[in-house]
Amino acid sequence: MSKYWSELVRGLVPYVPGEQPKVKNLIKLNTNENPYPPSPKVTQAINSFDKNRLRLYPDPDSDILKQALADSYGVSKSQVFVGNGSDEILALAFMAFFKQASPILFPDISYSFYPVYCNLFEIKYQQLPLNEHYEIVLEDYASDNGGIIFPNPNAPTGRVLGLEQLRSLLQRNTESVLIVDEAYIDFGGESAIALVAEFPNLLVVQTFSKSRSLAGSRVGFAIGAEDLIEGLERVKNSFNSYPLDMLAVVAAVAALEDQAYFKQTQQKIIASRDWLDGELQGLGFEVLPSTANFIFARHPAHDAAQLFAALRQRKILVRYFSSARIDQFMRISIGTQQECEALVTALKDILA
Amino acid sequence: MSKYWSELVRGLVPYVPGEQPKVKNLIKLNTNENPYPPSPKVTQAINSFDKNRLRLYPDPDSDILKQALADSYGVSKSQVFVGNGSDEILALAFMAFFKQASPILFPDISYSFYPVYCNLFEIKYQQLPLNEHYEIVLEDYASDNGGIIFPNPNAPTGRVLGLEQLRSLLQRNTESVLIVDEAYIDFGGESAIALVAEFPNLLVVQTFSKSRSLAGSRVGFAIGAEDLIEGLERVKNSFNSYPLDMLAVVAAVAALEDQAYFKQTQQKIIASRDWLDGELQGLGFEVLPSTANFIFARHPAHDAAQLFAALRQRKILVRYFSSARIDQFMRISIGTQQECEALVTALKDILA
Repeated sequence: MSKYWSELVRGLVPYVPGEQPKVKNLIKLNTNENPYPPSPKVTQAINSFDKNRLRLYPDPDSDILKQALADSYGVSKSQVFVGNGSDEILALAFMAFFKQASPILFPDISYSFYPVYCNLFEIKYQQLPLNEHYEIVLEDYASDNGGIIFPNPNAPTGRVLGLEQLRSLLQRNTESVLIVDEAYIDFGGESAIALVAEFPNLLVVQTFSKSRSLAGSRVGFAIGAEDLIEGLERVKNSFNSYPLDMLAVVAAVAALEDQAYFKQTQQKIIASRDWLDGELQGLGFEVLPSTANFIFARHPAHDAAQLFAALRQRKILVRYFSSARIDQFMRISIGTQQECEALVTALKDILA
Repeated sequence: MSKYWSELVRGLVPYVPGEQPKVKNLIKLNTNENPYPPSPKVTQAINSFDKNRLRLYPDPDSDILKQALADSYGVSKSQVFVGNGSDEILALAFMAFFKQASPILFPDISYSFYPVYCNLFEIKYQQLPLNEHYEIVLEDYASDNGGIIFPNPNAPTGRVLGLEQLRSLLQRNTESVLIVDEAYIDFGGESAIALVAEFPNLLVVQTFSKSRSLAGSRVGFAIGAEDLIEGLERVKNSFNSYPLDMLAVVAAVAALEDQAYFKQTQQKIIASRDWLDGELQGLGFEVLPSTANFIFARHPAHDAAQLFAALRQRKILVRYFSSARIDQFMRISIGTQQECEALVTALKDILA
């Protein structure tokens, strides 16, 4: 604590990202990265970009990327916002839409950055419990609120809601913004982008970090009604004019254009997820049904923290959360098929 | 205006960055970019970076870059903060240090993003007038305050303060943070980094955008006491864990390592600035003494807005601000010697 810190800083409890270990040869299944590299077209695009242009500021609006996203998702460019990862977009959206008189609502088990944003921006919030199956109960979100946010599929559970459930929530909740955080949507869920034309208060946030294998490039995007995008632009242009550097834009556009590669890696991850789900159940784990690139599993006879530590000893890193209700689960990112097999072998050894 | 916007967003007046025109063959002297490309080592470093690694999240602490900066400036790594351009660092610093009971102080003619941050974060501020020579009068900054910030050299005037003047301010102002925004320090000023060891409330902010020719990569840094850096980290980790992408870090480290190239381009820019200063004075302009990579000049007999428009017609873009006290000035970024000569030729033609 320093006497120079503002009161605000004193009260912060910052987000703790999953570990980025500097140890080599780890099987890294802890931060939901894609086990496959980005499209070869990304490498080509970065290599052929004239680095001398880096002396210039980027286009503050990243128009090329916005247009590519608009074309890809069948919306207009004015319905697209881009930012430095979906985390930055969420931060700006909390300021733009969630600083309201009533508290915002999100699940008790969810992305742990949401309460952090609320503390930073002095936003009241209420966490609504998942049910005993770890599902979001949308009926609970009917009260007066300053906004609603949840990941879909939810993290770290991996459970997904369908479009008809979201539509029904939006029909009831017309006075505040609903943000659907679709970081993991490309692994089997249906995107709420399909509902944007119907609902002026729906903002869908996605990222290039997972399904496009570009976590290292920091690119996220949001799609919603023009009014909402304009609100985000106002906050962004009061915070940082150029959050996307030139090479991040080049990488994202190239990744978006290679749909064939995208589908191929997506299908491989889904196949490995389904295989791993079956294997873990075979070992006695309870596995929540996942539509994401990770699975959330617990074993009735083995403590999760001990399993986590035993895996780490075997150089396999998964994610463990010590929070209430989920402290007996491990969140396991889907690796290559080979990595998933190594995990199963290690677990068999540990459980034996 | 949308009913979904927070009250906060309704009141924002966003920053307007200098134009990034999509017209070709402009001589672009409007946003203080470096006319020379980044070091050839930047190109090499980006090209040889394994793009497959982009599937992983970056190191959230950008340790490699922090260490390179610590080595370069003779401080410890814990005294270094890095961010997505110095604009992002300033935004985070306003939250970390300037949200106080008393208003913060900055000059009336200065970087126009400062009042924008204040509006976004609901920080009170007071603008203190430059004197009739467009100098910052540090004696005026003696009152109780929630913090002090100014660019040194100041923008858009280009005028610099010396270390002894800063030291004297710091000796008087011990209860709030002083941020010295050194975006332009490498073009002839003395960096206040030399004072960091003496004063626990001094934060020096710099950027790779100008002197390192990396505006397109979005990298800034701050150096100050450990306590201040920790405050910045707390806010950053409550906002966005990974603001620097992998290639931006690679580019910045390579640029920092090539000191010979840095000095060479720096000297060329200083030589062209001094040449241009003389030429403009020869044409009857009043030129403020500049220690930056731009000059601020007015002509007693020609309206600045008209000169700006006439230059633009000749495909030369400079910056014009319509604000009080400076609406008869043009801010001209230093281009290559050839670009500076083209500017002088065009002005001779216009004035004739």
